[in-house]
Amino acid sequence: MADQYVPNAAGPEPSMLPSIRWDEPPEGPVLVLLDQTRLPVEEAELVCTDVPALVRAIRTLAVRGAPLLGIAGAYGVALAAVRGFDVEDAAEILAQARPTAVNLGYGVRRARDAYRAAVDGGAGLEQAAAAALAEARLLHQEDAEASAQMARFGLTLLDELLPGGNHRILTHCNTGALVSGGEGTAFAVALSAHRAGRLRRLWVDETRPLLQGSRLTAYEAARNGMAYTLLTDNAAGSLFAAGEVDAVLIGADRIAADGSVANKIGSYPLAVLAAYHHVPFVVVAPTTTIDLGTPDGASIEVEQRPGQEVTELTAPQTAVAGVEAGSGMPVAPLGTQAYNPAFDVTPPELVTAIVTEYGALSPVTGDGIAELCARSRRVTIR
Amino acid sequence: MADQYVPNAAGPEPSMLPSIRWDEPPEGPVLVLLDQTRLPVEEAELVCTDVPALVRAIRTLAVRGAPLLGIAGAYGVALAAVRGFDVEDAAEILAQARPTAVNLGYGVRRARDAYRAAVDGGAGLEQAAAAALAEARLLHQEDAEASAQMARFGLTLLDELLPGGNHRILTHCNTGALVSGGEGTAFAVALSAHRAGRLRRLWVDETRPLLQGSRLTAYEAARNGMAYTLLTDNAAGSLFAAGEVDAVLIGADRIAADGSVANKIGSYPLAVLAAYHHVPFVVVAPTTTIDLGTPDGASIEVEQRPGQEVTELTAPQTAVAGVEAGSGMPVAPLGTQAYNPAFDVTPPELVTAIVTEYGALSPVTGDGIAELCARSRRVTIR
Repeated sequence: MADQYVPNAAGPEPSMLPSIRWDEPPEGPVLVLLDQTRLPVEEAELVCTDVPALVRAIRTLAVRGAPLLGIAGAYGVALAAVRGFDVEDAAEILAQARPTAVNLGYGVRRARDAYRAAVDGGAGLEQAAAAALAEARLLHQEDAEASAQMARFGLTLLDELLPGGNHRILTHCNTGALVSGGEGTAFAVALSAHRAGRLRRLWVDETRPLLQGSRLTAYEAARNGMAYTLLTDNAAGSLFAAGEVDAVLIGADRIAADGSVANKIGSYPLAVLAAYHHVPFVVVAPTTTIDLGTPDGASIEVEQRPGQEVTELTAPQTAVAGVEAGSGMPVAPLGTQAYNPAFDVTPPELVTAIVTEYGALSPVTGDGIAELCARSRRVTIR
Repeated sequence: MADQYVPNAAGPEPSMLPSIRWDEPPEGPVLVLLDQTRLPVEEAELVCTDVPALVRAIRTLAVRGAPLLGIAGAYGVALAAVRGFDVEDAAEILAQARPTAVNLGYGVRRARDAYRAAVDGGAGLEQAAAAALAEARLLHQEDAEASAQMARFGLTLLDELLPGGNHRILTHCNTGALVSGGEGTAFAVALSAHRAGRLRRLWVDETRPLLQGSRLTAYEAARNGMAYTLLTDNAAGSLFAAGEVDAVLIGADRIAADGSVANKIGSYPLAVLAAYHHVPFVVVAPTTTIDLGTPDGASIEVEQRPGQEVTELTAPQTAVAGVEAGSGMPVAPLGTQAYNPAFDVTPPELVTAIVTEYGALSPVTGDGIAELCARSRRVTIR
């Protein structure tokens, strides 16, 4: 097993820039994003002054991650409203920017409905815009609180599943502060275990093709001084076989009514490996990720992304070592086509538990999901 | 499932340069390798005039693949002998160039033993060197014949397992003419299905970290006009779940006496997925890959490679689009350590069949492996 338990050379560093923030400079209100395509090489902010710029940022994954997409969608509607653009148009364009993450549509609807309600109630356009912005801020704050709750419930679940602490957790893709108004979903649980002195090792899947694990999760783990080790996605099998994984923690982009979980491509093979090795497979996601309108896994629309993400290697979007920003280096013969779904779907029977801001659901059943949603509605709908 | 069945833009092309060849220019005998680190961008030959150059080529994976390493090892011993270097030293250095592929040691021993036998029989050094070279050429030829036999037995097995043809085969790493004196192992079976009009699709795992699937298997598939689609390793799960994989065909770097198979990292997760989805998982390897001296999977030494292969992206070793030859672009924070085993081990109970040049073994048992070896000894030992 070589020296994968050796501490990382990089110690804890100062906290990160916020992944999203609303700003009001003299030139007018803007939405400022930490550009995730430039990490970990550069911490650069991307300033969106209108909805098309935000849609581009969403499509190029400068901003990504299910909960954060919801927040970005809500602020996007507020941005259109505040700047006097057509709010209904903006909401429609934003909601369709990416198909799989249910939170995006949810955040868009929250801000749009607040705007509509204000208009219907006789408010002027400026007041209605303020209502949309207030709703976006509220969603942002709720998401931060949901992160904290998920971290708490997740750590309790880990301690129940694995008494004695000293957890070795495998995670996939990026689910930390970069995807959330708070500290994230699955990553927030690992971070909470780290702070409690009960994280022995975070195994970080690199997460091809876009390497959100290498670029973003490793970045957040280093920033937080966690003990982490990076691996290619296909090396996880060896870790399971060697008994080096105590639990898998992942996020979700959409949870269907039957408990099927759509998440970053590569999650499903981990679920199968975890089941084969009797290792808990835990999904951490806010209830905003649950979509009762999607009955089951087969009904989840999976985004197909360009084959070029697979046939070319792309550096983080910055000038490093003579590489032109964003240039792709071909690694397959010209004309090669690729199969490049952004997500896969894990059926409920392979999910040990779903941890939400209202607690952990285990076993995962349609009835349990329905009950969780009912509870979440009682709390959040005003 | 997008359009993964669309034909590839690139049609069949002229046949490839040989992956290895012995040459005798006026300056003296040399071993010429097709430099696999430059594919698919450049077809460049690497000329080895001595054993240290060959060892470098083996370590940097300019030459790789279990059967081809055996041939390279044998020619390496012949090269030392013909050029008047110490043959015993050369054999020792070559055998240790990479630890997991058993064929390397086998090829080295074959040529060295031929040399020793000639010397012991009273031959002069020149005659002994000729004996070593003759043995390397014989191994080369035997391997080409073994390829053809494996392709034949493999296709028969496929047709038995999947009556009706029209096979959709998933493969991992590279197992074609680039690893062999002939057309390879697993790839040769797929190629044989293609020629027989019974290959519907070859699914090519990209095979991180070094992308032998994208760079080499896609190259060989394009060269042969096969219908192929590239995918990230972690996308295979979705294909299984969608019922798009009829069989998995892989090679092997070492097969232990109990039938455990060491192969490129990522093979074991495919075996678990295949078992979970009731899809045949077939290993194709010549009997030279079987090592009766290794009793079981746990006894197989797995090579750990530098973490840099994971923390940096490296282009094919050539000047493309402003990228310096072989420059690595960092994709993880500085100081990130990586777990980077080159191989994993699949236990026999997950292997549907092992196809060798003497036929297919199924189920895979220690007794079956012993019998196969006995048969192979009767045929090849002179």
